[in-house]
Amino acid sequence: MAAVTLAEVIAALGGDLHGASESAAKTLLIERVGPLQAATPTTLSFLANPKYQSQLSSSLAACVIVAPALAELASSRGPAIVTPDPYLYFARLTQWWASRVRPLSPARIHPSAVIDPSAQVGQGVDIGALAVIEAHARIGDGARIGAHCAIGQGAEIGAGTRLSANVTVGFGCQIGERCIIHSGVVIGADGFGFASTGAAGGGRWEKIEQLGAVRIGDEVEIGANSCVDRGALDDTVLEEGVKIDNLVQIAHNVHIGRHTAIAGCTAIAGSTRIGAHCTIAGAANIVGHLTIADHVHVSAATLISRSIHKPGLYSGVFPFDDNASWEKNAATLRNLHALRQRVQSLEKALEQAQEKKNSS
Amino acid sequence: MAAVTLAEVIAALGGDLHGASESAAKTLLIERVGPLQAATPTTLSFLANPKYQSQLSSSLAACVIVAPALAELASSRGPAIVTPDPYLYFARLTQWWASRVRPLSPARIHPSAVIDPSAQVGQGVDIGALAVIEAHARIGDGARIGAHCAIGQGAEIGAGTRLSANVTVGFGCQIGERCIIHSGVVIGADGFGFASTGAAGGGRWEKIEQLGAVRIGDEVEIGANSCVDRGALDDTVLEEGVKIDNLVQIAHNVHIGRHTAIAGCTAIAGSTRIGAHCTIAGAANIVGHLTIADHVHVSAATLISRSIHKPGLYSGVFPFDDNASWEKNAATLRNLHALRQRVQSLEKALEQAQEKKNSS
Amino acid sequence: MAAVTLAEVIAALGGDLHGASESAAKTLLIERVGPLQAATPTTLSFLANPKYQSQLSSSLAACVIVAPALAELASSRGPAIVTPDPYLYFARLTQWWASRVRPLSPARIHPSAVIDPSAQVGQGVDIGALAVIEAHARIGDGARIGAHCAIGQGAEIGAGTRLSANVTVGFGCQIGERCIIHSGVVIGADGFGFASTGAAGGGRWEKIEQLGAVRIGDEVEIGANSCVDRGALDDTVLEEGVKIDNLVQIAHNVHIGRHTAIAGCTAIAGSTRIGAHCTIAGAANIVGHLTIADHVHVSAATLISRSIHKPGLYSGVFPFDDNASWEKNAATLRNLHALRQRVQSLEKALEQAQEKKNSS
Repeated sequence: MAAVTLAEVIAALGGDLHGASESAAKTLLIERVGPLQAATPTTLSFLANPKYQSQLSSSLAACVIVAPALAELASSRGPAIVTPDPYLYFARLTQWWASRVRPLSPARIHPSAVIDPSAQVGQGVDIGALAVIEAHARIGDGARIGAHCAIGQGAEIGAGTRLSANVTVGFGCQIGERCIIHSGVVIGADGFGFASTGAAGGGRWEKIEQLGAVRIGDEVEIGANSCVDRGALDDTVLEEGVKIDNLVQIAHNVHIGRHTAIAGCTAIAGSTRIGAHCTIAGAANIVGHLTIADHVHVSAATLISRSIHKPGLYSGVFPFDDNASWEKNAATLRNLHALRQRVQSLEKALEQAQEKKNSS
Repeated sequence: MAAVTLAEVIAALGGDLHGASESAAKTLLIERVGPLQAATPTTLSFLANPKYQSQLSSSLAACVIVAPALAELASSRGPAIVTPDPYLYFARLTQWWASRVRPLSPARIHPSAVIDPSAQVGQGVDIGALAVIEAHARIGDGARIGAHCAIGQGAEIGAGTRLSANVTVGFGCQIGERCIIHSGVVIGADGFGFASTGAAGGGRWEKIEQLGAVRIGDEVEIGANSCVDRGALDDTVLEEGVKIDNLVQIAHNVHIGRHTAIAGCTAIAGSTRIGAHCTIAGAANIVGHLTIADHVHVSAATLISRSIHKPGLYSGVFPFDDNASWEKNAATLRNLHALRQRVQSLEKALEQAQEKKNSS
Repeated sequence: MAAVTLAEVIAALGGDLHGASESAAKTLLIERVGPLQAATPTTLSFLANPKYQSQLSSSLAACVIVAPALAELASSRGPAIVTPDPYLYFARLTQWWASRVRPLSPARIHPSAVIDPSAQVGQGVDIGALAVIEAHARIGDGARIGAHCAIGQGAEIGAGTRLSANVTVGFGCQIGERCIIHSGVVIGADGFGFASTGAAGGGRWEKIEQLGAVRIGDEVEIGANSCVDRGALDDTVLEEGVKIDNLVQIAHNVHIGRHTAIAGCTAIAGSTRIGAHCTIAGAANIVGHLTIADHVHVSAATLISRSIHKPGLYSGVFPFDDNASWEKNAATLRNLHALRQRVQSLEKALEQAQEKKNSS
């Protein structure tokens, strides 16, 4: 347990102290960062969403990070750090906290790693046990390659990038600087491309060799067991700042604009181009060869089947219900087109009746 | 091939012998366990679902495991084991059979494994080739760590737990006793948490370091390539007896109650709390920050978008159809709200017509 | 950069040269294969889909591969290769190109690989760094096993099959000849099978040991991080020529017919039997114990919940819309059954009104 004082937090991260004196902050111990409800008297907590402000009064937290609008309420309870964006402050707090409680071990190249003599390894690189670095690969300064990683021939890992244990980077693929790639990620497997031989050829699939690679910008994060396939002819591209969650599939020749975030279990099919600053919720799917504008937001489990040219939130999911209700609605849905025709018939019948009456 | 006699099966697993004498059971050879339809005269089969009872008479099986209600029918055909729950009997039979035909190899620590000197390895532990056990990790008695596994710093693997080849357990994560973790599983990757810097900050995402870990109870099974992320502040928790299939995503701070089973390709988003004894069918999705009661059952491919407080079966999926029919219904669905308004207009028109008639 | 002449391409792959003389083809340099739009004067391009033929005239490509119907148009622009199926020609071109620009390294067994002395390794086999080959496994002639692969006890890898880095093949599983298995694939993890102990047994799940294995035919390709589970009693089977994309789940005892192709993030539940020459689009799901006929095509994100006995295209997905429109339609959908009853009431009311009028 690494305790700090509240004063040390403010010295490192800024913010205005309310509800306590500066000298009190120098002796107020913070032992953990945590949510309001489960806070102990040594917890530094935060309130980013005003809808949780009722939790404030009952929280035992040592101090709460709040926005100016809540400064008075929070400081009436006790110490508060007031900052324009409490959630962003909290994010930086977690980074500062992590650097203190789990500092990086000194970089070293584990003797069991298998590194081809032609690979170029920068200054201050950490290479984990049993990692494999193939011929002509390049590892930038300060990069950290986890245990069991496999870096293919001629692949490039940018400076300061961290690969967790067991990441696979295919030959010729490039990862930018300060990226974080989690365990089980596969970058640069073949895209899924085949030409049918047709009935005459027995309906076999002839492989289209995937001649492109993958290019990933700086400060990209990719979650566990996600895949980014190499391009068929050109490269698959993730621009800087893209954030990808676990078990996401990025097919060949997809292009994802900067600072777009994609949640878990989403699939982006081949050659689709997604703009910058988009958010794609979990288990969404985007079919191939589409163009999605900047600032588009897709709801969970939605299938995007056409290009989207306007920013906004897009959704498409069958609302769940208890099974009996769903079954009744689903059965009706299977004949929805007929229902519409029945409504049309009714409208016509009523119109005719009206006309008859008027003409009679 | 390891043949046993029917008498040996009954001695090991119980059940009442019908349709054959005890002395006959001592000479009736069983060479495999298998389904009714493909059974050979040395197959031990079972009938758990009465709807398949028509397969009984034509089956060549040496013996059939049945419930009391089918004892007469089954024994008229030949030898039968009668037991209250044939499917449960069958499960235990497969366990007994597996222990005979593929006994565990004697535990040994493969010389190629890389084990930090500070790691604590219990009695009778098996560690596969090229596994990596990092500093201060603890491996309980009788645990089996497959080839290429990576056990992070300070992680704990409970007694009798088995990890298949190529499992990644992140630093500080805990797995209970007698668990089974399949290949490609990643436990303790970072949860997907970012704070936006907002337009002023260029719309970048600031990482929220994930300060929690993962705690997994006893007798949990996790299928191939599934992911359980570490918590943001608190831990992600799987209680005892939870069973998770392949390619399932469990996000940060999810809590899954005991004996809940989750089928393949399902995603559970962050901070959702699922009760005990639930079953979640394949490819279902549950959004974040929800509470799901005990004994809730979710149908395949259903998106759960609100908390569920009552046990029961919940569904929500567009019924599939031939493409032309689906297209017609989907097109109508896109204007469903307008259709409802047309029905409302018709109702009003009819009502007015009625009123007019009554008043005339 | 490996330049070839157009004449060399035609000599290797056939096709009729139009729009240029044979002697011109001997000096026309091709430096890359690429799409029409981004083509440079040394790019060999192709036009498979007539809807892109407007791109033809403006393309800078050195030569374009076209079907006979477009021979005149293409050759009016410049050199063209005319062939009955340009896409198939293009596929073979990528294969020929890949064999030139990235020839396989000479086969060698990396000294760091851990190979059990009882394993049988064929002629000309390549085994990557830190691969593990367990007891009695058999590796066919010319197979290539990537770095960090784990081949379980008694597993068989057919001649000429290539495993990328970090593939896991479970004990006793068989992979045919000339297959391609990408990184992170897990073949032969346990199927998801449990019997409930019922309320009396505390609602625990009793494991059904999975006694089957996986059998994969020749020329099968499986994408990154996909899973094929071992069968419960019999084997899970993929017939020859099956192509599977990334992050696909194939549950226990599934049987997939030859030359069926399955796109990314699809899940096939247990014991389902899929015919030959089917295509399953991305993120589709097929529930368990179904039979799908040959030549069935399933649209993206569709849940197949019943057997399909007729070839054709099947779909079922909620059409996406801007969120406000979707919400209105979804709200109406939740009462669709009631809407249908209202239409029924209207029909009755109108009928009665009509009858009354007729009888009056």
